[in-house]
Amino acid sequence: MPDVQRIAPCSARAVELEAGDELIVIDPEGQQVSDLTAFSREDNREYLSSGRSIDYASRLFLTTGDVLYSNRSRPMFDIIEDTCGRHDFTLTPCSKDTFSIIYGETEGRPGCEGNLAHALSPYGIEVDRIPIAFNVFMNVDIDATTGAIRVLPPLSRPGDRLRLRARMPLIVGMTACSAGQSNNFRYKPIDFEVVRA
Amino acid sequence: MPDVQRIAPCSARAVELEAGDELIVIDPEGQQVSDLTAFSREDNREYLSSGRSIDYASRLFLTTGDVLYSNRSRPMFDIIEDTCGRHDFTLTPCSKDTFSIIYGETEGRPGCEGNLAHALSPYGIEVDRIPIAFNVFMNVDIDATTGAIRVLPPLSRPGDRLRLRARMPLIVGMTACSAGQSNNFRYKPIDFEVVRA
Repeated sequence: MPDVQRIAPCSARAVELEAGDELIVIDPEGQQVSDLTAFSREDNREYLSSGRSIDYASRLFLTTGDVLYSNRSRPMFDIIEDTCGRHDFTLTPCSKDTFSIIYGETEGRPGCEGNLAHALSPYGIEVDRIPIAFNVFMNVDIDATTGAIRVLPPLSRPGDRLRLRARMPLIVGMTACSAGQSNNFRYKPIDFEVVRA
Repeated sequence: MPDVQRIAPCSARAVELEAGDELIVIDPEGQQVSDLTAFSREDNREYLSSGRSIDYASRLFLTTGDVLYSNRSRPMFDIIEDTCGRHDFTLTPCSKDTFSIIYGETEGRPGCEGNLAHALSPYGIEVDRIPIAFNVFMNVDIDATTGAIRVLPPLSRPGDRLRLRARMPLIVGMTACSAGQSNNFRYKPIDFEVVRA
């Protein structure tokens, strides 16, 4: 029996995984992004590292068959299914400062960074330690000559999913993204399911 | 009187800057890379963030006129001169694990990560806290369609320089890179100069 859980729009959840557990991140309505970050439960100074993962894959865009590595160069996840095929691993989670600097927003919304910090605070992980996330379904176009980037609407359709298998005991934080540019200004929810080993 | 200091091949140095000080990173012989990372001296949990800097510039390749931001979205440096024009801000410093995973090396050389950790240890900054560096002169080619990356020889010629102005009191770590692929297997030194405000 699948046990699908929902991340409400503009919020985050945390979940604990054991090695072998599977985590399925689902875009229920299409065109939404989930910023995903992870920390080792044995020592939370070990975290999911974009720089390591990109270096070892020799690719910016990761998908089925790729491994997500920690800063200590240990595998944290295998990507075992990806029905969308386009995610970002270069940008930090949006924050109230992002909204202020990029959009001129003054409401002080916490953004994915603030929402992740809230979800991860019971694990003693503070906001300064939230790194570049694996931005599931985020569609960042790159101009290879100038390096210019454009955040475009996600390519994900309703029901698209990314399935990860944990390679070590993990704390995982995930959001339903708060940045209008990332989700085509629709601010939808994200669903997830944990399949225990 | 310029006071040029040398970073020996396959090593790192740390330097303290005040706001307004200028740091000039020089490639004396050409085709060498310097992994540069920085931490706030007021609170070293604040560090140079690739994800923030790329997001706010909307560009992967940063150069003269761009700002390097911290994880707290505060300006750490202005890039005020860049005679090379190509640097990387996506990859973590090379490490003994990098050499093992990518090259099959077994010597256990510390790499830029180990060398930075050694240089930064007097400031209480441990190896787990070394983030994606601003990889000065590193030439990473990107395929915009597949995301495939290739580490190519640097475009820097002898004497090329990157001049940064500090926007806050900083601890800066810099290397002469240890990864053969990054420096065309020549393992040269890097020079730097600090111009006090």
